[in-house]
Amino acid sequence: MTQKAAAATKKPVRPDLDAELNNLAMSKEAQPLFDAVKAHIAENVAPITEEFFKLGEGRKDRWSWAPGQLELLEGAKNKAKASGLWNFFLPHSEIGRGLTNLDYAYIAAELGKYALASESLNCSAPDTGNMEVLEKVGTPEQKEKWLKPLLNGEIRSAYAMTEPGVASSDAKNITTRAELVGNEWVINGEKYYISGAGDPRCKIMIVMVKTSPDASPQFQQSQILVPMGTPGLEILGPMTVFGHDHAPRGHMHLKFNNCRVPAENILLGEGRGFEISQVRLGPGRIHHCMRSIGAAEKALDLMVKRGSTRTAFGKQLIQLGKNLELVSRARIEIEAMRLMVLKAAKAMDVLGHREARVWISMVKAMVPEKACLIIDQAMQIHGATGISQWSPLSEMYVNQRHLRFADGPDEVHHMVVGRAEISRH
Amino acid sequence: MTQKAAAATKKPVRPDLDAELNNLAMSKEAQPLFDAVKAHIAENVAPITEEFFKLGEGRKDRWSWAPGQLELLEGAKNKAKASGLWNFFLPHSEIGRGLTNLDYAYIAAELGKYALASESLNCSAPDTGNMEVLEKVGTPEQKEKWLKPLLNGEIRSAYAMTEPGVASSDAKNITTRAELVGNEWVINGEKYYISGAGDPRCKIMIVMVKTSPDASPQFQQSQILVPMGTPGLEILGPMTVFGHDHAPRGHMHLKFNNCRVPAENILLGEGRGFEISQVRLGPGRIHHCMRSIGAAEKALDLMVKRGSTRTAFGKQLIQLGKNLELVSRARIEIEAMRLMVLKAAKAMDVLGHREARVWISMVKAMVPEKACLIIDQAMQIHGATGISQWSPLSEMYVNQRHLRFADGPDEVHHMVVGRAEISRH
Amino acid sequence: MTQKAAAATKKPVRPDLDAELNNLAMSKEAQPLFDAVKAHIAENVAPITEEFFKLGEGRKDRWSWAPGQLELLEGAKNKAKASGLWNFFLPHSEIGRGLTNLDYAYIAAELGKYALASESLNCSAPDTGNMEVLEKVGTPEQKEKWLKPLLNGEIRSAYAMTEPGVASSDAKNITTRAELVGNEWVINGEKYYISGAGDPRCKIMIVMVKTSPDASPQFQQSQILVPMGTPGLEILGPMTVFGHDHAPRGHMHLKFNNCRVPAENILLGEGRGFEISQVRLGPGRIHHCMRSIGAAEKALDLMVKRGSTRTAFGKQLIQLGKNLELVSRARIEIEAMRLMVLKAAKAMDVLGHREARVWISMVKAMVPEKACLIIDQAMQIHGATGISQWSPLSEMYVNQRHLRFADGPDEVHHMVVGRAEISRH
Amino acid sequence: MTQKAAAATKKPVRPDLDAELNNLAMSKEAQPLFDAVKAHIAENVAPITEEFFKLGEGRKDRWSWAPGQLELLEGAKNKAKASGLWNFFLPHSEIGRGLTNLDYAYIAAELGKYALASESLNCSAPDTGNMEVLEKVGTPEQKEKWLKPLLNGEIRSAYAMTEPGVASSDAKNITTRAELVGNEWVINGEKYYISGAGDPRCKIMIVMVKTSPDASPQFQQSQILVPMGTPGLEILGPMTVFGHDHAPRGHMHLKFNNCRVPAENILLGEGRGFEISQVRLGPGRIHHCMRSIGAAEKALDLMVKRGSTRTAFGKQLIQLGKNLELVSRARIEIEAMRLMVLKAAKAMDVLGHREARVWISMVKAMVPEKACLIIDQAMQIHGATGISQWSPLSEMYVNQRHLRFADGPDEVHHMVVGRAEISRH
Repeated sequence: MTQKAAAATKKPVRPDLDAELNNLAMSKEAQPLFDAVKAHIAENVAPITEEFFKLGEGRKDRWSWAPGQLELLEGAKNKAKASGLWNFFLPHSEIGRGLTNLDYAYIAAELGKYALASESLNCSAPDTGNMEVLEKVGTPEQKEKWLKPLLNGEIRSAYAMTEPGVASSDAKNITTRAELVGNEWVINGEKYYISGAGDPRCKIMIVMVKTSPDASPQFQQSQILVPMGTPGLEILGPMTVFGHDHAPRGHMHLKFNNCRVPAENILLGEGRGFEISQVRLGPGRIHHCMRSIGAAEKALDLMVKRGSTRTAFGKQLIQLGKNLELVSRARIEIEAMRLMVLKAAKAMDVLGHREARVWISMVKAMVPEKACLIIDQAMQIHGATGISQWSPLSEMYVNQRHLRFADGPDEVHHMVVGRAEISRH
Repeated sequence: MTQKAAAATKKPVRPDLDAELNNLAMSKEAQPLFDAVKAHIAENVAPITEEFFKLGEGRKDRWSWAPGQLELLEGAKNKAKASGLWNFFLPHSEIGRGLTNLDYAYIAAELGKYALASESLNCSAPDTGNMEVLEKVGTPEQKEKWLKPLLNGEIRSAYAMTEPGVASSDAKNITTRAELVGNEWVINGEKYYISGAGDPRCKIMIVMVKTSPDASPQFQQSQILVPMGTPGLEILGPMTVFGHDHAPRGHMHLKFNNCRVPAENILLGEGRGFEISQVRLGPGRIHHCMRSIGAAEKALDLMVKRGSTRTAFGKQLIQLGKNLELVSRARIEIEAMRLMVLKAAKAMDVLGHREARVWISMVKAMVPEKACLIIDQAMQIHGATGISQWSPLSEMYVNQRHLRFADGPDEVHHMVVGRAEISRH
Repeated sequence: MTQKAAAATKKPVRPDLDAELNNLAMSKEAQPLFDAVKAHIAENVAPITEEFFKLGEGRKDRWSWAPGQLELLEGAKNKAKASGLWNFFLPHSEIGRGLTNLDYAYIAAELGKYALASESLNCSAPDTGNMEVLEKVGTPEQKEKWLKPLLNGEIRSAYAMTEPGVASSDAKNITTRAELVGNEWVINGEKYYISGAGDPRCKIMIVMVKTSPDASPQFQQSQILVPMGTPGLEILGPMTVFGHDHAPRGHMHLKFNNCRVPAENILLGEGRGFEISQVRLGPGRIHHCMRSIGAAEKALDLMVKRGSTRTAFGKQLIQLGKNLELVSRARIEIEAMRLMVLKAAKAMDVLGHREARVWISMVKAMVPEKACLIIDQAMQIHGATGISQWSPLSEMYVNQRHLRFADGPDEVHHMVVGRAEISRH
Repeated sequence: MTQKAAAATKKPVRPDLDAELNNLAMSKEAQPLFDAVKAHIAENVAPITEEFFKLGEGRKDRWSWAPGQLELLEGAKNKAKASGLWNFFLPHSEIGRGLTNLDYAYIAAELGKYALASESLNCSAPDTGNMEVLEKVGTPEQKEKWLKPLLNGEIRSAYAMTEPGVASSDAKNITTRAELVGNEWVINGEKYYISGAGDPRCKIMIVMVKTSPDASPQFQQSQILVPMGTPGLEILGPMTVFGHDHAPRGHMHLKFNNCRVPAENILLGEGRGFEISQVRLGPGRIHHCMRSIGAAEKALDLMVKRGSTRTAFGKQLIQLGKNLELVSRARIEIEAMRLMVLKAAKAMDVLGHREARVWISMVKAMVPEKACLIIDQAMQIHGATGISQWSPLSEMYVNQRHLRFADGPDEVHHMVVGRAEISRH
């Protein structure tokens, strides 16, 4: 590992670690940025959101952006950049704002409230993870070619890990093969559910491949840069999520058929694929979880509103049967989830990525599952409207259900937590 | 209530009622029909199913049948009719086969295995319920005009109950108004999630309306026949279920805007809407529940298959963590559900509809909820494929989730069961 | 296996197996016995129950019966014997009544309603299982010495399987060692939770021991007869269940310290311990499960009664919050459990013990867990009274909680069911 | 309300409230006290605990302390008092240490680890609540007579709220009647589950009574001081918890039969019973919840230990089936509970008792229920030993199960949380 990468995952020595870990308050230093982000969203993002999505509706060519859409988005991006609200996701970094993961978590909760907020600030997945990786382990040439335009918001990127043919929840199962032939990597295999790979602006992809089948299992995989449009890289089509294709970003099904990239496209070095994954743990998962909590909060809100304005059997729905207790349980679980995610973010700040990885797994296993349940209960109180196009609930459910697989299924995270518990004894 | 309707819901006097209720075996008399239905499905339905749906894919005009689709279906219908496998859903009836609900339940389980099986035998919802109602309470003229073509499979029908503006889980909330002006009913209001109303073959609809706002709450509603295409009846568009519109049948959103139908279109009489609902309890719910069990069974099957053919962390997925216990719990719940639905069907046979209504509510509250859970677990073991277009699981989930609202939400059925329990004390 | 034992577990060839399996009605032939048992309980058992337990209260010598207790019980036994209501538990047997397991299940539900009912008819565990084993695999001498007095109700017996030092849920873990020295088995080891071994009338015990450590794992264990009072067999004391010792029957902790019994005390032969366990599957588990359902039914009854007679926040408790839905869910689960246990009993009749073993595991894994949940909910609605001496609920809970370990923990039964499911594919 | 009482429950005006609320770290000021308490427990409490309970075993006179028991306890108390570790539970008070609720929560977690720790520091319930009430609303005479000896640890006290005849979860149901006759209150009624009232050292009891049946429902109740031994106050006997009587402290059943106390024994004034309950919210519930978390933590510890040292089917138990996932889920829920209780304590500090009451209800509804579940799972992995006298688990379960009623059943707390949620809209 480079020294930089090592530093990011090293456990700092702190005398009063426990006390520090339990201080989950936003820092005073982050408050101005937090306020500026909220103001930016209110002024530059909220007003364009409805128009943006309206422009995209009912298009014949689902896999491009409609005229006008990107202009709206670029307008918001330019305003953000002009205000210095840009790329602050990079934690503890000279490029970013040196924001702690905890402070970022508070901001992420705000970003989650509007679909375009993250991208307007160049803080959206999977670019954030990709930029973090490039910044930490990229060569100067890789940084010049891919990190720079990503940091400028000129292009977008994808991350290709999951494969259709194996249980890729166990990353050691990855079979997409890259062989060094001359000074090129020749790649063969399939990947699917590659989010964002349908976006015409997506220009580069980090791909997890097997380069070293004879090494020990932890050192067989590598990560490699594959530009979109490379010959031999075929987009077979979009994968759907409960029937939704999320065009034009999409979750694409890709085929590598003797796809060739230069030898220097490998990241960090052959067999170091899992080492890079450690680096990648950063703000992405915190961001996801804070959005999930935001979704649960919104579902609870809709549940109370609907339940308070409809009447059956002589009572408000919300007062019927178990509904009020469901409201209480949802509130309790939401507050518990929020504290847990803040603590996981703080653990990343205080303990380093490696030590905090159990905390990350705890919240990743906890949050989307509970969010699904709360959204499901909100749907039930809405009657058929809850699963219709008139309510955001079914789409919210589908997104959260998807998250129970993405970035590792619940079961793998429970395995991490369970094993850590046992190893403490 | 007419004498016939009364007979159908009367509790028979039986000396050995309990023993009878627990005999859940198919009758010897039904065996030949059961075998004939299975043979018909294998010979006439299974072979056309894939082609039927393929013809319907990717059409620009989503709200019509593709050329050739109906021809395929009519072919299967004609063969069924020629073999006398037609309209046997009508229980205890001179038109049907006098089939008991229990025997019908066994057949329904077979029908549920192929999407076109029910319709090929003229046994599909909501036509079955509508034909049953017309047969029991219709006037000779109503029977001639609507029951006859329905029995012949020449037209299809819809049933309009749910409204977007109120919690129609409490049927007393129904607000669609029908007023007698001269010798016409003038109808105003909105209905939604009216399944099948998008089908161009749908010609008639039974609509629950409020005719008598000054009567006591149980006698304010009526049911009325409204032909599709009646002026003032507007189809506003399809409602979606988790984004699916199920075209061309659809779940339609309808508006009645001074829609006029002849006075004689009322069924049974003014204020007798709830009385008719009692009649309607028949095979529909049993059919639904048997299909749900079929879906759960299929999900378990897929779960075991996927789990046995994929490997992670050195083991078959099915052997990892809680998966094997989930398989066991799914098997146990499926067997329990099946026995419960058979018993509910038997209760309808032995006790009459009125007494059996608690059994019907028990299975309606029990089955779709448990089926959802089993399907959800099957999705989880599939990884992302489980929610993709490559697996039927997400569509199965969506259908079962929909059923937790349709024909009364779970909560209303639990209320029926809970109250019955209390009243026994 | 002896021919007799083989016959009991053979799968019969039946043409209409499925139909037969779903006929869960009591046979006409069993009705008179069923009626006679109910009459006996009403006349001879119910009247003595309160006095019997009152006599036993507050005794200094907790490990004997109080004067008068056994006289009461013997009175009831004599009346039963005189009426021919005796030992009818033995299924398909010349000694018993040839009662099917299904018919016995209906009777067991009645027996479960009074604590002394089973014993008054010589039909109580573990004697039933022990008598069944002796009858099927015992030598003439073993039958004469132990089966005869058991059949006459003169002595009682115990069954010693579980060990404190190992996870005996996996029976292959059993470590209590029996070595043949001369013509004696010398036994060393510990057993615990040996129910009934504290009863002064308990004279004989069937003990699972390891005789053949060098055989393959399925053939290392044997079952052996050990008379109580044999030198070297020490009762270390009672084990408690949530603090209860259930004196004077007790769940005893035993130590074998060079305890010697004659070579001929072995059952069926060396290494055939697991084979005997197959025989033992019989009515015991059905009986247990029917009692659990009876307990759940009683809990639901108490829940409704308490909830209907207490008021808070202006309403009956039963009408508050989720309570009515809990009542509904309890009713649904109870009916589902009942049908499942009846079907498991029928499977034993129709398929034989071996095939039915998955059904037995299904109900054993299903019933006590759900019964615990229902009893727990009934406790909650009672407030503090629910866990006090004024209510039977906490003792009912403790008994059901114990059952989730006894005769195999839930997890082992789920493993059996899960594996059977997988092997069907 | 007195000014003092009002101050304790007033919501302070704070500019940075949210940030403050999320700082859950122990204060630097509390650290020395925290360390001193830990040292005291290690030196003075841990060494006497086993002997203390051994002395109390198997006594004929269960309702007194054994010779030597109190001497041991008084020794620890004297050492604590000498070190100034005494009465620090009183928050924000001149008598106590001005400890915040948050800091107290951290200490309470330590106190919960040894059964005698709290009392050794004069910080045990219900004395803490009673002292807090007396300190805040007592007259100088009441303080002199009862608060002083309580603060000195010379006597103990009880709090009598729950009644056997009504659903006292709704405190307005309280029926124990106190009527002013001359200058005496004449009390009639029954109370039960009065914890600690069996202790011979218990000298005073605060009793919730109905004094003003004609006032509006919120103002009918009063709280009144009743010395133990007052004529007309009869101890009918102990109530049990799953069969345990917890002698000699006990949960007593009391009868007031024309029991007379002086008029000045009323607290704060007639009809102000509920107002006093607001005061009483203090450290008691936080203490309870931290102990529950400690119990869950211990159960998880036992679960992992047992599961790692026993083997079945060729694997450690902890690696079998769902066990590892249960470990993970338990760890996640424990961490979430801990953060929630710390936040509730902080809310009391920052928002005042009134505003924090929803937070208190959240943790009271959340913690004992989840603790029960975790303990239950730990029992299951232990096999029969888990419910035996060899494991603390069944007693831990019983205590946590009791807590789901004590200080308000879960349902009432969910009602508080649910209503607060609705009122925010």
